[in-house]
Amino acid sequence: MEWDELFASRAMRMKASEIRELLKLLERPDIISFAGGIPDAALFPKQAVADAYSDVLTGPQSSAALQYSISEGYVPLRDWIVRDMAKIGIVCTADNVLITSGSQQALDYLGKLLLSPRDTALVTWPTYLGALGAFNAYEPNYDRLTPLSNRPAEAYNEQAEQAGGAVKFAYCVPEFNNPTGETMPRAEREWLLDLAESLDIAIIEDAAYQALRYEGEAVPPILALDLARHGGDIESTRTLYCGSFSKTLAPGLRVGWIVGAQTVIRKLVLAKQAADLHSSTINQMVITKVAETVFEEQVSKVRATYSHRRTRLLDALGQYMPPGVQWTKPQGGMFVWVTLPEGMDGAALLKRSLETAKVAFVPGKAFHADGSGANTMRLSFSCASDAMIEEGIAKLGQLIADELAA
Amino acid sequence: MEWDELFASRAMRMKASEIRELLKLLERPDIISFAGGIPDAALFPKQAVADAYSDVLTGPQSSAALQYSISEGYVPLRDWIVRDMAKIGIVCTADNVLITSGSQQALDYLGKLLLSPRDTALVTWPTYLGALGAFNAYEPNYDRLTPLSNRPAEAYNEQAEQAGGAVKFAYCVPEFNNPTGETMPRAEREWLLDLAESLDIAIIEDAAYQALRYEGEAVPPILALDLARHGGDIESTRTLYCGSFSKTLAPGLRVGWIVGAQTVIRKLVLAKQAADLHSSTINQMVITKVAETVFEEQVSKVRATYSHRRTRLLDALGQYMPPGVQWTKPQGGMFVWVTLPEGMDGAALLKRSLETAKVAFVPGKAFHADGSGANTMRLSFSCASDAMIEEGIAKLGQLIADELAA
Repeated sequence: MEWDELFASRAMRMKASEIRELLKLLERPDIISFAGGIPDAALFPKQAVADAYSDVLTGPQSSAALQYSISEGYVPLRDWIVRDMAKIGIVCTADNVLITSGSQQALDYLGKLLLSPRDTALVTWPTYLGALGAFNAYEPNYDRLTPLSNRPAEAYNEQAEQAGGAVKFAYCVPEFNNPTGETMPRAEREWLLDLAESLDIAIIEDAAYQALRYEGEAVPPILALDLARHGGDIESTRTLYCGSFSKTLAPGLRVGWIVGAQTVIRKLVLAKQAADLHSSTINQMVITKVAETVFEEQVSKVRATYSHRRTRLLDALGQYMPPGVQWTKPQGGMFVWVTLPEGMDGAALLKRSLETAKVAFVPGKAFHADGSGANTMRLSFSCASDAMIEEGIAKLGQLIADELAA
Repeated sequence: MEWDELFASRAMRMKASEIRELLKLLERPDIISFAGGIPDAALFPKQAVADAYSDVLTGPQSSAALQYSISEGYVPLRDWIVRDMAKIGIVCTADNVLITSGSQQALDYLGKLLLSPRDTALVTWPTYLGALGAFNAYEPNYDRLTPLSNRPAEAYNEQAEQAGGAVKFAYCVPEFNNPTGETMPRAEREWLLDLAESLDIAIIEDAAYQALRYEGEAVPPILALDLARHGGDIESTRTLYCGSFSKTLAPGLRVGWIVGAQTVIRKLVLAKQAADLHSSTINQMVITKVAETVFEEQVSKVRATYSHRRTRLLDALGQYMPPGVQWTKPQGGMFVWVTLPEGMDGAALLKRSLETAKVAFVPGKAFHADGSGANTMRLSFSCASDAMIEEGIAKLGQLIADELAA
């Protein structure tokens, strides 16, 4: 079989990410890993989840829980999301909500709906590499989104046209960005809405970390600002908000959602119906029960734990990093982004680190659509104990200092 | 927002199926429905599923169950599938297996991997409409697969070339086809392998109903015959076998699988990683436990129940259908396919039936890639009680007789 000749051109974009290999390091007891961008399993609301599965399977919904269900998603879950969204200024109805299998699937379906080959997606440098992975299957080009830049709208259009397509959307993670941990200030969000209006494109707001704020004042989601520009009429908005229970409750159930104008949601429902019929019925029911009972308590617990770890990591970086190394000071999320001195290569540093210091992190290049960012790295603190942080950052700081001295 | 201008061309293929509306009829107590192609919820192994969730969430895997996991799927589940496949002549390893969110997702990913716009997919007339839905997103053309026909391979290639692409795969449901209920005899399977070899294309074997045989001798799966042609070397095969737990255990957990050459599985793992990371971890663990404990017993129960219903439906058709109406005599599965007298329209009949006889079925046109088959219909017996069958088929037979007399 000559499989290569049978594969579609988009298959050439399906490439193994080195990140995957890195995540395996988490299992090596001799490595202190800041690589994995995953929640701490010790925080999962196991009892509430176990109770919910038991309740669902012994209650009147037990048959429905195991049966096929509608592609839009479980109505009480969509109702819960509507109430949750209202708390952050997003007023919508259940018809504006599609349940997805994690917010990763939201990115896949949005790429599928919006991108023809050679169209352009606007992303920040760096951005979530899983978004690049999801979009890559639809063969777009990427152009750089630089918040508050003066680059005129025509320049984006011209570049997209030269690339053989049109600008279709701007993608961003405005809250506690993966990988930088940074929050887009309100002015940048308004700038992005202005740009999207000029270009008449969609905005994909990846809000996977929305609930994980540890300090500072909340900034309205882009969709909330978009709604405010349209007198609260969600049907006139251009922002597609992607949410997730993976960072607050548990990722293993694979439940996320998209909120947006019905024109788009209706198309996405059809896409989902064709692609996997619906997300797990029982898991949607269980997430609903867990959200209805312990969501606030659970989010408080997660916030307190991660907030402590973030502070410890920032303190350790201040204590152990040599001059010339810079890092972000996130107000939430799971990540700190480190910029190494110009010319130092994150990938090469990791290689040496795994041999000597035995500390793992993710080199920043993979998060850059143009392959730049060699002198950057992502540190995740979500699973890091005080002892790991103390020992790991001391060793990493020493390694970088040694490199600089060499 | 001018959303239509932002949608990719493939979005134009995302259309609501009238089937969806039909399935809602299941909830109307005044309608006797043979429309839904879903398993009978009364047969779900609820206790085993409840026990499995409880075991997983109180055992040593409780943290892993709620955490992210690998895109390939849970290893013990893949190991169970390897053992299960061996029983039907498919010898493979866990590296040949990808877990998907139902076999519908397998079809989506295979379309994504193999189809460029204007490529050709070979399908039977009629075929599973969900497969057409999944493939449509990748904008293929369809050409007709007529088992045992003498049409030369070059003719398929020529037609594909004229359509602007290449033939990429042949798709079929060889066991108890949805919608016809028919089984492909061994000679047709060998013919298909010959054709696929001549064209050097893949075969997608949709085996969703594989376990549901009620009588007659089992025919080896196409992948088993393909393996036999290559001395058991799965890496040399061209068949991608799509399995599902939806018809044996329960669809609400969304667990299916693909078995094939590693060259393809590795690409599909990347596609899945980019599209939804992985299927629900806890559901994979639960399905493993349920499969390990009650699979045979469960399959026996399902077979006995559906077998009885099939026999009753066939008897009722024989008793009540007027001359000129023909139907298949399935050896398994969930469906009987009815051919009405030439010129009678299934969709028009359904409209009248819902007004007068109050009996629902699925008109056959939707299962035809070319929109033919107006005088056909699909009857599902999986959820039909003896009383429903007796009353429903009597009324339907009378309605058809009245139409013929008019």
